[in-house]
Amino acid sequence: MLRSFFSSTQDKWQPIIKQLESVVGKDGVVRRKEELLTYECDGLASYRQRPGLVVLPRTTEEIAAAIKICHDNDIPWVARGAGTGLSGGALPVEDCVLIVTARMRQVLDIDLANHRITVQPGIINNWVTQTVSGAGFYYAPDPSSQIICSIGGNVAENSGGVHCLKYGVTTNHVLGLKIVTAEGKIMDLGGKVPEMPGYDLTGVFVGSEGTLGIATEVTLRILKRPESVCVILADFPSIAQSGAAVAGVISSGIIPAGMEIMDRLTINAVEDTVALGCYPRDAEAVLLVELDGLAVEVAANKKKVAEICRANGARDITTASDEATRMKLWKGRKAAFAAAGHISPDYFVQDGVIPRTKLAEVLKEINQLSDRFGYKIANVFHAGDGNLHPLIMYDNSVEGAFADVEELGGEILKLCVESGGSLSGEHGIGADKNCYMPYMYNATDLETMGYVRDSFNPKGLANPGKLFPTPRTCGERANAQKMAKVKDAELF
Amino acid sequence: MLRSFFSSTQDKWQPIIKQLESVVGKDGVVRRKEELLTYECDGLASYRQRPGLVVLPRTTEEIAAAIKICHDNDIPWVARGAGTGLSGGALPVEDCVLIVTARMRQVLDIDLANHRITVQPGIINNWVTQTVSGAGFYYAPDPSSQIICSIGGNVAENSGGVHCLKYGVTTNHVLGLKIVTAEGKIMDLGGKVPEMPGYDLTGVFVGSEGTLGIATEVTLRILKRPESVCVILADFPSIAQSGAAVAGVISSGIIPAGMEIMDRLTINAVEDTVALGCYPRDAEAVLLVELDGLAVEVAANKKKVAEICRANGARDITTASDEATRMKLWKGRKAAFAAAGHISPDYFVQDGVIPRTKLAEVLKEINQLSDRFGYKIANVFHAGDGNLHPLIMYDNSVEGAFADVEELGGEILKLCVESGGSLSGEHGIGADKNCYMPYMYNATDLETMGYVRDSFNPKGLANPGKLFPTPRTCGERANAQKMAKVKDAELF
Repeated sequence: MLRSFFSSTQDKWQPIIKQLESVVGKDGVVRRKEELLTYECDGLASYRQRPGLVVLPRTTEEIAAAIKICHDNDIPWVARGAGTGLSGGALPVEDCVLIVTARMRQVLDIDLANHRITVQPGIINNWVTQTVSGAGFYYAPDPSSQIICSIGGNVAENSGGVHCLKYGVTTNHVLGLKIVTAEGKIMDLGGKVPEMPGYDLTGVFVGSEGTLGIATEVTLRILKRPESVCVILADFPSIAQSGAAVAGVISSGIIPAGMEIMDRLTINAVEDTVALGCYPRDAEAVLLVELDGLAVEVAANKKKVAEICRANGARDITTASDEATRMKLWKGRKAAFAAAGHISPDYFVQDGVIPRTKLAEVLKEINQLSDRFGYKIANVFHAGDGNLHPLIMYDNSVEGAFADVEELGGEILKLCVESGGSLSGEHGIGADKNCYMPYMYNATDLETMGYVRDSFNPKGLANPGKLFPTPRTCGERANAQKMAKVKDAELF
Repeated sequence: MLRSFFSSTQDKWQPIIKQLESVVGKDGVVRRKEELLTYECDGLASYRQRPGLVVLPRTTEEIAAAIKICHDNDIPWVARGAGTGLSGGALPVEDCVLIVTARMRQVLDIDLANHRITVQPGIINNWVTQTVSGAGFYYAPDPSSQIICSIGGNVAENSGGVHCLKYGVTTNHVLGLKIVTAEGKIMDLGGKVPEMPGYDLTGVFVGSEGTLGIATEVTLRILKRPESVCVILADFPSIAQSGAAVAGVISSGIIPAGMEIMDRLTINAVEDTVALGCYPRDAEAVLLVELDGLAVEVAANKKKVAEICRANGARDITTASDEATRMKLWKGRKAAFAAAGHISPDYFVQDGVIPRTKLAEVLKEINQLSDRFGYKIANVFHAGDGNLHPLIMYDNSVEGAFADVEELGGEILKLCVESGGSLSGEHGIGADKNCYMPYMYNATDLETMGYVRDSFNPKGLANPGKLFPTPRTCGERANAQKMAKVKDAELF
C-alpha cells in the first residue's frame, strides 16, 4: 500500500505537501532533492535512504497534525532529532515523511525547587545543563555526543554516557513526557512526581526508538552539582587486572560516577592523535575512575580506590581534582573514537553489555575473534556498567571487508548475550541490530512487544523496520506486509 | 460467561479441581469454605469476597499450568502474596481461582559479585536482606510491612518505604522477572544487566497490580550496607516550618536515605501508645532525617541538616548514630499507624503524592477538609518524596461514617492530583481507588493502558476489576462485559 501510493505519479505528493504546509508553513517542508541529502542518514552513515520529504514542526500540535496526515494517508514516517544516533534509528525509509525536531528548542519550564526542567525535544543535551548550571544544577546523562545530540533522540534511544554508572541512563531521568502517538493522539505520560499509578508507559516510551510516536515535551530530573569531583587514572600491565580493580571498587561499596577502561591499542591511538602524554604507551590498560560527592567523601574514596588499584597490580596512579587536569585526563577517553579514525581508514563501533564480572573472560574471547577474522579491535568501555565498545578497524575500500566486519560485530554481540549480557548498552537497535534481537528474545517476547507497539502504533507507520527483526525471523505480525516493503529492513 | 460457568451446578467445579490437583497436588488446592475464610480479604479489610478456590503452586511451571486451566475455562483468577496490600489488589473476585504464592519461598540464586539475588515471589521482603546481610548487603525497598509482606506483592504494587527517597521504589531494584502471562505463557523480562534493548516490559510489569500475570522469579539488585547511618530528630512549632526544612535539605544537594514528618496528633498518639518519651508532645511536627554513607560524609551532612533545621525554626535537635537509639527514634514512626488504631475505634489510611514544595499548602487544605467533614486527620508522611499518608479517624459503628470517610479520602486525592501529584505513592490502586483513575488519566491514557493490558491478558481474566475504572467511566473495552460482572468493581 505504501509503495503503491508513492510509486505512481509525483502528483500524489502534491495534496500531502499542501496539507503539511498548511500545518507547518511553507518554510517547514523540505522537498528539493539537494536539500534532502542532509537527511539521508544519521550517525550510522553506512546506510543511506533519501526521505520523501522533511517537515520541521515547532509545536506539539503541529507534530500531531503532521502525523495525522501521515496516518490518514498511510504514509510511513520517521522522527529525527540531531541525527547523531549510531544505530540508524533516524535512517529514513523509502518514501517516508521525516519529522525533524530542529525547530523545537524551547525551554518550557524550569522548576528548581522540585529539581526538574521541561524542554522541547530538539534541545541539545548539553544545553539543559547550561540552562540550569548557574543555579548549581546539571543534567546527568552525558553521551559522548552531548554537545550535538538532542534530548528527543536521547529519549528515543535511552542514551547513556560516562556518568551513568552512578546516576543511571536517560530513563532514570525522565519524569514525564508529552507525546504524539502514531495515530496523531496527544498523550501525557508520567508527570511531575516520580511515582504514578498504572502501567509505566513513560518507561515503555523511553528507548522505544521512534516506533511508538514522538516525544514533544520532556520533563527531566536535574541534579545538584556535587561539591567535589576527582579523577583517578591507573595503568595496568593487563586488561584482566584492570577488570579486577573495577570489580574490587564496586565490591567495596563505592559507586564512582564513572569507570572507564581503554586498552593498549586505544591508548596508543589516543597518544598518536591527541598527544596528551598522560597515558603510558606500554600499559595494557588504563582505568579512569571519577568520584564525586562531598569533599570529605571524595577524599576518603580516592584513598580506597587507589589502594584497590594497587592491590590489583596498578603501576602508576595519578589523581586530579582541579578542573583543568581532570579535563586533560578525560580528553583522551573522549577522543578515543576519533583517534581510531586516525589510525585506521575506517572503523566500526560495536555496543554490547556483559556482566561486569565477565570482563576479562569476554575480552579474551574478543581478542581471539580479532585474530580469527584478521581485524584489529581496540577496546574502550564503560567498565563499571560492563558496557563494551569494541572498535573494529578496517579498510572499506577492500572488497568484502565491511561484510567481514559486520559478521565479526555479530559474533561479539553473540558473546555478550551468551555471557548474560545485552545487545546494546546505549546506542540502540535501530536498523543496525534488529536482526540480532532473536539472540535475546524469543517469539513470545517479540510478539508481546509487538502488541505493545500496536497499542501506540497500530498501522505500523512510525519508524517501520526498526528495532524489531523483519517478519522472516519474528513471525507474522500485523504490519508484516508494510515492514517487508521497507527497503532498509531487507538489508539484514 | 464467567457467572454462567459457576452459577450453574457445583459439578462444574469438579473437573477444574481435578485438573488443578493434577498440577499442584491434592494438598495444593484449598476448597473447604472454612479454609477459604482466610483468603476473603487482604490488608484492605473493608471489602471481602470469598474466592471459588485457592491453589498453592510451588514452581513457575505449576503456575503456568494452573493459569492455562483458568484461561481454557474462562475462569477469572487473582494472585496473592502475603495478603498485606492496602488497596485490595489481592481481594478475590466472585468465583475466582486465587493463586497464592505462600509455598514459593526459595532463594534461587545469589550473585554477590554482580550485586543481585534471584528469589521466588513468596519470599518475605525482609528475608532478602537477612539472606545477604552476612556478606554486607541489603535490599533497599522497605515497606512498613517488610517483616510480613512478600516480594511478589512488592513487585505487583511497586512498593515503597522509608528509604525510597534516596534509593527508589521497587521498580528501581528489579533487574529481571520470570513471569507467567494471563494466557499461561512463561516469559523472561529484563535480565541480569540493567540495560536491555526493546520496550521496558519489566517496568510495565512492576506495579501492574496482578493485571498482566504473575511474577514467578524475581532478580533483585542488592546494595552494600553503608559504612555509617545516623538519624536526626528535629521538632518544629509548625508543619509549614518542617516542610520548609525538608525543601531546604533537598535544595542543599543532600539526599537523605529518608525524611519523615509526623504531625502533633500523630506524635501524641504515638506517645500515648508506645510511650517512648522522645517525641515532644507540644511540637506541631517532628521531622526524622536518616543519613547514610561514609562516616565522614554522614558527619558532614549531619551538621548541615541540623543547621538547615535550625534556620527553619526547629526547637530541639537530637541525633543518634548508634543502632539502639536510632531504632528508638524510628520506633514511633513505625508504630504510627498502629497508634492511630489505639486512639480511634477505626482509621482509614490514604496514600497520595504531591510535589514536595506544596507540602504546607496541601496540608492546610487537608486540615480544612478535616474541619468541614468533622473527622480528625493525623498526618504522617514520607516528606522527601511528598508521599502523604493522612490517617482519617472515625467510628465504623456510626451509620454513614465510612461513606463520609471515603468521600473525604476522595477529596484528599483530588487535592493531590490538582497539586500536580499522584493518586498513590506506594499502596497501589487495586479495588480501592480505581474509580479515581480518571482524575489523573484521560480516556486515551486509559485506553492505551488497556491495550497494553490486552497484550499480556487478552481475555481480561487476570485480576479483573482492579486498577482500571469500571467500563462506565473508562469507555468500552474488550473485556467490559467481564469486568461489569465482577461484583467488586460494582462497589465503586
